[in-house]
Amino acid sequence: MKGLWLENQRLSYRDDLPIPVVRHGEALIKIRYAGICATDLEMVRGYYPFTGIPGHEFVGDVVSCEDRPDLLGKRIVGEINITCGNCDRCKRGERTHCRNRKVLGINQWNGVFAEYCVLPQSNLYEVPHSISDETAIFTEPLAAALEIQQQVHIKPNDHVLLIGAGRLGQLIAYTLALTSCKLQVVTRHANQKAMLLKKSIPVIDELKIQMSAMDIVIEATGSPHGFDIARRAVRPGGIIVLKSTYKGDLTLNMSSIVVDEIKIVGSRCGPFDPAIRYLNTGIIDPASMIDSIYELENGVAAFEHAAAPGILKVLIKP
Amino acid sequence: MKGLWLENQRLSYRDDLPIPVVRHGEALIKIRYAGICATDLEMVRGYYPFTGIPGHEFVGDVVSCEDRPDLLGKRIVGEINITCGNCDRCKRGERTHCRNRKVLGINQWNGVFAEYCVLPQSNLYEVPHSISDETAIFTEPLAAALEIQQQVHIKPNDHVLLIGAGRLGQLIAYTLALTSCKLQVVTRHANQKAMLLKKSIPVIDELKIQMSAMDIVIEATGSPHGFDIARRAVRPGGIIVLKSTYKGDLTLNMSSIVVDEIKIVGSRCGPFDPAIRYLNTGIIDPASMIDSIYELENGVAAFEHAAAPGILKVLIKP
Repeated sequence: MKGLWLENQRLSYRDDLPIPVVRHGEALIKIRYAGICATDLEMVRGYYPFTGIPGHEFVGDVVSCEDRPDLLGKRIVGEINITCGNCDRCKRGERTHCRNRKVLGINQWNGVFAEYCVLPQSNLYEVPHSISDETAIFTEPLAAALEIQQQVHIKPNDHVLLIGAGRLGQLIAYTLALTSCKLQVVTRHANQKAMLLKKSIPVIDELKIQMSAMDIVIEATGSPHGFDIARRAVRPGGIIVLKSTYKGDLTLNMSSIVVDEIKIVGSRCGPFDPAIRYLNTGIIDPASMIDSIYELENGVAAFEHAAAPGILKVLIKP
Repeated sequence: MKGLWLENQRLSYRDDLPIPVVRHGEALIKIRYAGICATDLEMVRGYYPFTGIPGHEFVGDVVSCEDRPDLLGKRIVGEINITCGNCDRCKRGERTHCRNRKVLGINQWNGVFAEYCVLPQSNLYEVPHSISDETAIFTEPLAAALEIQQQVHIKPNDHVLLIGAGRLGQLIAYTLALTSCKLQVVTRHANQKAMLLKKSIPVIDELKIQMSAMDIVIEATGSPHGFDIARRAVRPGGIIVLKSTYKGDLTLNMSSIVVDEIKIVGSRCGPFDPAIRYLNTGIIDPASMIDSIYELENGVAAFEHAAAPGILKVLIKP
């Protein structure tokens, strides 16, 4: 089959990849669209040692699924953590932290920048008819955005600062804007600002942020500078949610975290059901985030385009 | 009056200190006992730039209190944060984070290693008759220990690791042991271990800790090594409570905090009322933590003794 292949930090297009083998409990999925996210770009830059087909955001159709004929032909999206179901964490319901997990297109499991992928049936969610392919593709990152509200109670009267309004940051902003919190978003990119303002989401200049005043700060840039703003903006007793990974180690004054009783909360994958509900009602409609759509054959160019500053969602179509 | 004086990291005994002036809304307190805590020792080592009378753990009697005659003669303990009552944080009930706060014996307010101190009346808590002076002295650090449970819900089935069992660590251990959580405590000092075992609190060797397994880890050593153990011991999705300050900055892999969805919670001063309830019922009886009692005249020697490894509570008696 056709697909993108990552090896030694080199991404290439290939047409000789084998169609993945479907095992018991799994489904073969034909990809309609796959989305490029920051993690994909970082893998190509060498921050994750992965060899294989990258990609984990997708919408597709089940084309083979021996033991679950009811799934056949269904249009689906899928959770990216492939779990063992048997370890203590799985049994406690913390599937995304399974001790033996593999991750679609990220860790020990081929991803979705290809004609086909395979996932366990239990990872699949049928997409309601009302949701277009161009909207369904945002289910996984929207779920990641909603993980914040799974972890932190955002109250109506909270002052919330979001740092970063890129691919994930936009979706976080849309979800936060639906709470009645006092939301402000920092971003340097004009197009990202425009997207927010079109949805009446307040944008603030970095220099005008009220320091030591925010109940909750969400850091979605993954840069030490972003973390530094977060630390200075949060009030004593407040919460910093970290939504992006950082290159290398961070150095911080941990005593001030103790004295000011700050909470730092790491946040990763989130729940699909509420993401699908939002997309189904249309309350959140992220399709306007799509910058461009590339054929799979031009996938390497798609990656180069997606890596340019300020670019939002780039899709790949097999 | 007699007292200890800290200036340029030098602690000295003096008998020429003025008795503090009592202003409207304040009370003059005659000190019965004052306790040496880790923060006092760190101030002498120069980690806080304070000039004045140090000390913030005490039990004493109200000897002057013009506008509240009902307080006169009462045996009291006192909250250490002197607050403005007018800033946004005070108005939100977050008194310990008051924008204009002074701190008894730590920041802009003379402390309790002296014959007398002054505090706002609203900081004072009457000590029930059933609580001895030697027990009442532990109210402030016990309140700090209870702050953990104000911030974090410790559930009956949680695996909890406490790192450090010194002055504050012991009290934390006693409070945690009253929940039905699976508690394990790490400490290197034989006397601290013995204190815990006498109260049937499980002690674990550092090398035998189950890594990536603890729901909650409480770091009470203030050492980078302690933080490192905490990070490795906590499970994905778990909580690290930081209960001690660190000398200088800490460097950490923040990406792993994101991927493992760890929560880091800074924790400082706590509520006096529940601490007094515990001491009043005798459910927590920390008096056996007292290592020695020094006269105020020998306060400098008391500090030297308290700084020796493994030593628990050293009191100073004016």
